[in-house]
Amino acid sequence: MTASPLLSTDPSVVLSGAGVFGDALADQAVPVAQVDFRPPLGAGTLDDALVRVLADPRRAAADAEAVRRVLAIRPQLVDVRPAREALGLEPGTFLHAGPPVTWDRASGPLRGALMGAMVFEGLAATPEAAERALADGTAPFEPCHHHGAVGPMAGVVSPDMWVFELADPATGRRAWCSLNEGLGKVLRYGAYGPEVIERLRWMSAVLGPLLRDAVRAHGPVDVGAIIAQMLQMGDEGHNRNRSGTLMLLRDLLPHLVASAAPSADIADAVRFVGGNDHFFLNLVMAAGKLMMDAGRGVPGSALVVAMARNGTDFGIQVSGTGDRWFTGPARVPEGLFLGSFGPGDANPDIGDSAITETCGIGGFAMAAAPAIVRFVGGDVDFALRTSRRMYEITLTENPQWQLPVLDFRGTPTGIDVTRVVRTGVLPQINTGMAGRVPGTGQVGAGLVTPPADCFTGALLALAEHAPALPGPV
Amino acid sequence: MTASPLLSTDPSVVLSGAGVFGDALADQAVPVAQVDFRPPLGAGTLDDALVRVLADPRRAAADAEAVRRVLAIRPQLVDVRPAREALGLEPGTFLHAGPPVTWDRASGPLRGALMGAMVFEGLAATPEAAERALADGTAPFEPCHHHGAVGPMAGVVSPDMWVFELADPATGRRAWCSLNEGLGKVLRYGAYGPEVIERLRWMSAVLGPLLRDAVRAHGPVDVGAIIAQMLQMGDEGHNRNRSGTLMLLRDLLPHLVASAAPSADIADAVRFVGGNDHFFLNLVMAAGKLMMDAGRGVPGSALVVAMARNGTDFGIQVSGTGDRWFTGPARVPEGLFLGSFGPGDANPDIGDSAITETCGIGGFAMAAAPAIVRFVGGDVDFALRTSRRMYEITLTENPQWQLPVLDFRGTPTGIDVTRVVRTGVLPQINTGMAGRVPGTGQVGAGLVTPPADCFTGALLALAEHAPALPGPV
Repeated sequence: MTASPLLSTDPSVVLSGAGVFGDALADQAVPVAQVDFRPPLGAGTLDDALVRVLADPRRAAADAEAVRRVLAIRPQLVDVRPAREALGLEPGTFLHAGPPVTWDRASGPLRGALMGAMVFEGLAATPEAAERALADGTAPFEPCHHHGAVGPMAGVVSPDMWVFELADPATGRRAWCSLNEGLGKVLRYGAYGPEVIERLRWMSAVLGPLLRDAVRAHGPVDVGAIIAQMLQMGDEGHNRNRSGTLMLLRDLLPHLVASAAPSADIADAVRFVGGNDHFFLNLVMAAGKLMMDAGRGVPGSALVVAMARNGTDFGIQVSGTGDRWFTGPARVPEGLFLGSFGPGDANPDIGDSAITETCGIGGFAMAAAPAIVRFVGGDVDFALRTSRRMYEITLTENPQWQLPVLDFRGTPTGIDVTRVVRTGVLPQINTGMAGRVPGTGQVGAGLVTPPADCFTGALLALAEHAPALPGPV
Repeated sequence: MTASPLLSTDPSVVLSGAGVFGDALADQAVPVAQVDFRPPLGAGTLDDALVRVLADPRRAAADAEAVRRVLAIRPQLVDVRPAREALGLEPGTFLHAGPPVTWDRASGPLRGALMGAMVFEGLAATPEAAERALADGTAPFEPCHHHGAVGPMAGVVSPDMWVFELADPATGRRAWCSLNEGLGKVLRYGAYGPEVIERLRWMSAVLGPLLRDAVRAHGPVDVGAIIAQMLQMGDEGHNRNRSGTLMLLRDLLPHLVASAAPSADIADAVRFVGGNDHFFLNLVMAAGKLMMDAGRGVPGSALVVAMARNGTDFGIQVSGTGDRWFTGPARVPEGLFLGSFGPGDANPDIGDSAITETCGIGGFAMAAAPAIVRFVGGDVDFALRTSRRMYEITLTENPQWQLPVLDFRGTPTGIDVTRVVRTGVLPQINTGMAGRVPGTGQVGAGLVTPPADCFTGALLALAEHAPALPGPV
């Protein structure tokens, strides 16, 4: 007679949930496989909503159509223009990142950036005067997303700032994003000192026109193809854009050099772009906006078409629910800090740059950029696991954007509200961190996820739009 | 009574050697762990030599000193000059890749490149006339390696060609490499048609002087730092140099733009460099030469200081054996072919570019460049395994050049002749493939290893130099 195998063989334990039990077993040299299971978000009403949305007979075809439209977009840089011209932005009006927000609820960096933009536009002599005007409501501001645009961090765009204009040749769709100012004390991180304003003026007077002329001489720049190559060159397109920046520079250079502008200006522009590894981010963002806008408005689709933060609220928009925002309180990222800054200095999550994750790169493509962990925190294994985990909450893979180290698997693309709610896995976002006090600038970079409320809110709204389930028999 | 565990439990088999037995077991669903064990190279005399070299009391300190010198080098690009000036190369003399070789044993691409160089120098009116002069011995040629230089593929350098000059600030050491011509029908792959000669003339008349002026205006370019970044940007420094090329361009650009040269020439130069992802290879090679030359001449050290091929022979040089070459027949690489070319069109392995592997990158750093497998063959897992395997035959890790996906482990650096002989693991080289017929140009890119003879030959020579072992008691 043989003993029960449970007693005669070594135990092998599969665990989910609290790690303390597994730790105790591991201390006794028992092999433990920790399974990353989480209960679905919410319960009760939410369960009913989930069933109703999953049972929606339109869902499969709607999601397929939405992601088909997204993946069909070929983002090309076609022009560089002032925002007043490209976006029809009236003097005295401003755009900002994230869902709508009022001045009294606006975060420090968003306030700082709006104040700086007022000074830049010549509408206020001092930041203090600008602050009063903004608090009075005499200088209106609206989300970039409501105007086909996106902006990193505070995302403030004013009429005299120049923007990249991207277009899709087949559909004629367009999207815009501001020009990147570099790191440190810059407007988008809420700084508004004289050096910030001076740099913005140079960007509008010199850099913008030079880039415009080079882009027009070059013809459309295939931003989608550059992104594909970036992912083979250590960039994830959100917090690493080094190779993308260099490829843009390479493509525009012959035309910059051939320009009639003073060679000192050309040298300055080349030095500015080449010295800012994040310059290409704003083109990735515009490409993401162009792609995801194409996925909007498909009835029954649970595809997330925007994730954006204003520094106070995190908001998402979903294909099947029109332009409605589903919001929750923005979290403070965890990560690495510059100089003497620490967690107490960081503002909650801010910026439209999560459009990169929305379109399947950034945090979703961390496996392409293991070196990113030196900038945002985590380790290489975390980077690989993160990309793999994002396949659990996405609808498709992008065959044109591949992750070499995952055997050239396409990037996980198209966040599905139902999968997020079912799995409890939240989208991973790599992000910069702004100082919470206006005027500070950047304090670090890190990792963050959206609040679960955005997804449960969206699910409830999708359920409202879904056909009623047949009643009990 | 319980049955023997061999019968009551599933068998688990560890296999080394022939795969056919394991395949048969695997077909029967038996788990098989194939172990990559190989017998040491050679036997008999070689065993005695290995024991004698391993017992050499100087060895540990000698190897440590040799790699210390290698890793202390800081390769900087300090000038761009004609070879006649930089190398003192006399009119009518030529340099070539690999160990010394005579015309009658020279491979097709080496012959083709020498013929083209004669025409380029104005020493022959036609390739046929050049061929006669070379066969007559009236145009002498010697290895680049004998002149502190390296050249990719055929590696032919003539006095009027321009070369990169690299220096180490601490030791004043220098090393040189030609400028990269691009891919396809180019001299270094043995092509010598009119377009090849015309391109070389433009490189000497326009590109060389522009680069010289830009480098002198910029000051020393830190090539070692660029290589460190390349390894975080998907390049392995031998067959992928895309990000390295872009970073060089970025650094030199403001000075190119500010040059007094005609802007059409500057635009041409920028287009040429930016359009050739391999441009930076020649700087990586010169950096490798500079580093490895510093490791030469340490008595008792088994460090490989050069691996080079002339298209007929593969040769290595070793720190403890002076300038002696240990050669074996060059192998034909396996890989991917361009257009309609196939294995029958490929010449055996050629070029000094294996200096990249000698200094720990190229094939040794494939883990940094998973996308390389789309160019040289293999799969992503092979790329990761290759880097890991190279640690078995190297003396140290380079803390300045890191492989992000291997948790930022330093590149495997300093091939040890004794470890190669003991393990039977041969250095992995990524390489271009030249057509075997002179005039053809590039036919593909692939993977290759040196013949084992180089290492057994070097071991025997090291043994000759080692102190006699104490006789039997």
